[in-house]
Amino acid sequence: MTRDNADLTDELEIPEIVDVPEDLEDLALGDDYALNPEYVELVIDAADRGDDDRLRELVGALRSEDVADLMGFLTADYREQVIPQLDSETLGEVLSELDTNLREEVLEGVPSDTLARALEEMDSDDAVDLVEDLEDEKREQVLAAMDQTDRDAIESALKYDDETAGRLMQREVLAAPSFWTVGQTIDHVRAAGDDLPELFFDIYVVDPAYKPTGAVPVSRLLRAQRAQPLAEIMEAVTEIDVAMDQEEVAYIFDKYHLISAPVVDPGGRLVGQITVDDIVGVIQEESEEDILALAGVSDAGRDATIWGIARSRLPWLAVNTVTAAIAASVIGLFQAEIAKLLTLAILMPIVASLGGNAGAQALAVAVRALASRELNASNAARVVWRELGVGVINGLALALLMSVAVFIFFRDPMLCLTVAMALVINLFIASMAGILVPLTLDHLGRDPAVSSSVFVTFLTDFMGFLSFLGLAALILL
Amino acid sequence: MTRDNADLTDELEIPEIVDVPEDLEDLALGDDYALNPEYVELVIDAADRGDDDRLRELVGALRSEDVADLMGFLTADYREQVIPQLDSETLGEVLSELDTNLREEVLEGVPSDTLARALEEMDSDDAVDLVEDLEDEKREQVLAAMDQTDRDAIESALKYDDETAGRLMQREVLAAPSFWTVGQTIDHVRAAGDDLPELFFDIYVVDPAYKPTGAVPVSRLLRAQRAQPLAEIMEAVTEIDVAMDQEEVAYIFDKYHLISAPVVDPGGRLVGQITVDDIVGVIQEESEEDILALAGVSDAGRDATIWGIARSRLPWLAVNTVTAAIAASVIGLFQAEIAKLLTLAILMPIVASLGGNAGAQALAVAVRALASRELNASNAARVVWRELGVGVINGLALALLMSVAVFIFFRDPMLCLTVAMALVINLFIASMAGILVPLTLDHLGRDPAVSSSVFVTFLTDFMGFLSFLGLAALILL
Repeated sequence: MTRDNADLTDELEIPEIVDVPEDLEDLALGDDYALNPEYVELVIDAADRGDDDRLRELVGALRSEDVADLMGFLTADYREQVIPQLDSETLGEVLSELDTNLREEVLEGVPSDTLARALEEMDSDDAVDLVEDLEDEKREQVLAAMDQTDRDAIESALKYDDETAGRLMQREVLAAPSFWTVGQTIDHVRAAGDDLPELFFDIYVVDPAYKPTGAVPVSRLLRAQRAQPLAEIMEAVTEIDVAMDQEEVAYIFDKYHLISAPVVDPGGRLVGQITVDDIVGVIQEESEEDILALAGVSDAGRDATIWGIARSRLPWLAVNTVTAAIAASVIGLFQAEIAKLLTLAILMPIVASLGGNAGAQALAVAVRALASRELNASNAARVVWRELGVGVINGLALALLMSVAVFIFFRDPMLCLTVAMALVINLFIASMAGILVPLTLDHLGRDPAVSSSVFVTFLTDFMGFLSFLGLAALILL
Repeated sequence: MTRDNADLTDELEIPEIVDVPEDLEDLALGDDYALNPEYVELVIDAADRGDDDRLRELVGALRSEDVADLMGFLTADYREQVIPQLDSETLGEVLSELDTNLREEVLEGVPSDTLARALEEMDSDDAVDLVEDLEDEKREQVLAAMDQTDRDAIESALKYDDETAGRLMQREVLAAPSFWTVGQTIDHVRAAGDDLPELFFDIYVVDPAYKPTGAVPVSRLLRAQRAQPLAEIMEAVTEIDVAMDQEEVAYIFDKYHLISAPVVDPGGRLVGQITVDDIVGVIQEESEEDILALAGVSDAGRDATIWGIARSRLPWLAVNTVTAAIAASVIGLFQAEIAKLLTLAILMPIVASLGGNAGAQALAVAVRALASRELNASNAARVVWRELGVGVINGLALALLMSVAVFIFFRDPMLCLTVAMALVINLFIASMAGILVPLTLDHLGRDPAVSSSVFVTFLTDFMGFLSFLGLAALILL
């Protein structure tokens, strides 16, 4: 993949790549651009030998994103040997890419001055991300060592809540009055130089009060005639409120296929922009949170200790112990029945387990539909009815399947009937819980992914035991 | 949010928006840019009255993406009333945004000629998406009605496999030789007009064999002096192979924060480009698939029938019936023990359930880490050991909790010991299964999200019953 780039760099002397021997770059990444395990081994070998020159060479052949990846695969000792081999610009980029846990650890070891220099070279959104992770004392040292303008940018961004548009946005933005022509705008860009964002995709047209009135994609500016006024080629903008939650921002970007969007303060004035590359990260983050939340885990991070991970998973297990005990206490009420017919003890977990699975299915579908706004008040009733129908249909299907199996093993038609009826009841309950619990949590403004599972599992266990053993008491004994 | 846009359209007469009264636009979307349920009601009311003028007005006030959303909230009858109110350009955009199931349904009702016109106006990647969903006969009719160039583009894209870069890419791309200056390139863009993509973010620099050798972001082109050659300002490109799986493409875009990337054929020649707005959709899709797969559901789509949904969920429930039955058959081996001590029947589902939950936790973490390439051969051993450690720690913690509870209720120290030992064993098994099953499936080239749950649940149920009842037989009886 990098053949052509390497030829190119020989010719052009692009400074970051030119000194790197061809073979290391080829070795570093697999065909899928993931870091090769063998390359990690090379780094570990060099670190074991204390060969700093080789380390610098190995790390120098990687892009910053790959160095960040490498950090994730190394233990703390090896990381401490690699970090001093990075120049301060690369260090800033690598730090931006690291997971939070790992970053906090790495940040402790970097001198405040080095960090201040790195932060000054970054876009304000990335810089804020880093500063946030510093401990209070170090944060003050680092900010004090930065120049005034960059420090102000960071301090004002820190005033916005975490996970809002204000935190995601970069303050660097290209704004122009609507009476400017295409030519004037291009000349302005050529003259402005370093005050502009590193990359930009839209020029925001603003009124005298600095409120956005339109946007011109850069490619359209390029295509237009120099004499044309911006007002003639601009398109409508989708404004993002500075206090908007990042999940909503991601939804808007995804829905309208935005590349960048202007961020406005409560007075409607342009204060920054959000670009799609930051949003890709948010989308990944939010969907990962949902996957983990449905399983009752909070992300302890790739580099958490065993104790940290165990602690992050224990609360849900403890809650589940209580709910499982309550569900199992139903069994205690039917000890006499079980004593008379021990087969009940064999069949009851099957009924409970199938209910649990059907509930988990309905729940996953509902959580996904809520997250993508496919489920809301206008179709909730229809979706609920449909889920209940699905519960009944699959309840009947499983009832048939289990009846046949039970008849083959136990030759007892009344036992078949009991299992069948219990399954239909429990799958109905499972469907109902799987859709109504997340809808209710969402309606109450809670995240439906976080606490739904425990309710649904409890209900299907409880009702599984109750319906089966209760029916057995009525029908069989 | 749209105040300024409305002012703007009054002034500029942008055709799609200018005739729309202010109040409808405000009514349509909530603060979070999701379609208001009340607005859906307005549309349903108008459709019930057969008021086509009002329908056209209501639909005209929405952006295409919101019309697509609206379709999702309407039943088929209402949709059939809304579709004729859309002009063919809007129709194309709306069709692009629809979910596959819904789209197939809607496409059936649209005349081939109308569809051909709409397809001609779309970028090739979106057009291919639509054509794919047509039935064979209709597809031929529609392609025959299109002009030659657009038809060729679609037919050649259809030759690439589904879910590959070849399908995702658009063929419209801006390429320039490296000896061109910035000024020459800008002049070329101004002159080229409609042959260029609707929006573009990078200009690809190609050698005489049309192989990409670098890329120039449009914003950098704008900033450079006219006399500068492209070779001096271009940066390295990350090439995407035309056969690459879309999940890998998404990983690369996310990792390197790409806005667009050139797609090359096996000979390394530039054949198209992929832009980040298409990737955002892929990322959403892939993570939704993981959430559903972990729960044993395939997405039947928002508009599937009850039967369709039931059928999509039944296979996993049927498999689970078999595994649950095998796990429960372990209970059958210990009927004599249960008959002697009925308390065993109460406690055994708790042990199995806690194992199941711990397994689901480890599994969700592993699936997420594999998907984001945080887990691979170079840290797998470390992650496995850590999971086993977590299993033992949480097993001990739950053992303590349950021992106390069991002692309070049953006053039997040996029963406490049995439950405690069974819990430690089962949580260890759960951790092991939760990490090793997805790692093994991934190693075999299978999607770890799809079939892991059923293995893990089976193992924790089976071992839960076996460890608890087995230990009870040894210790208590």
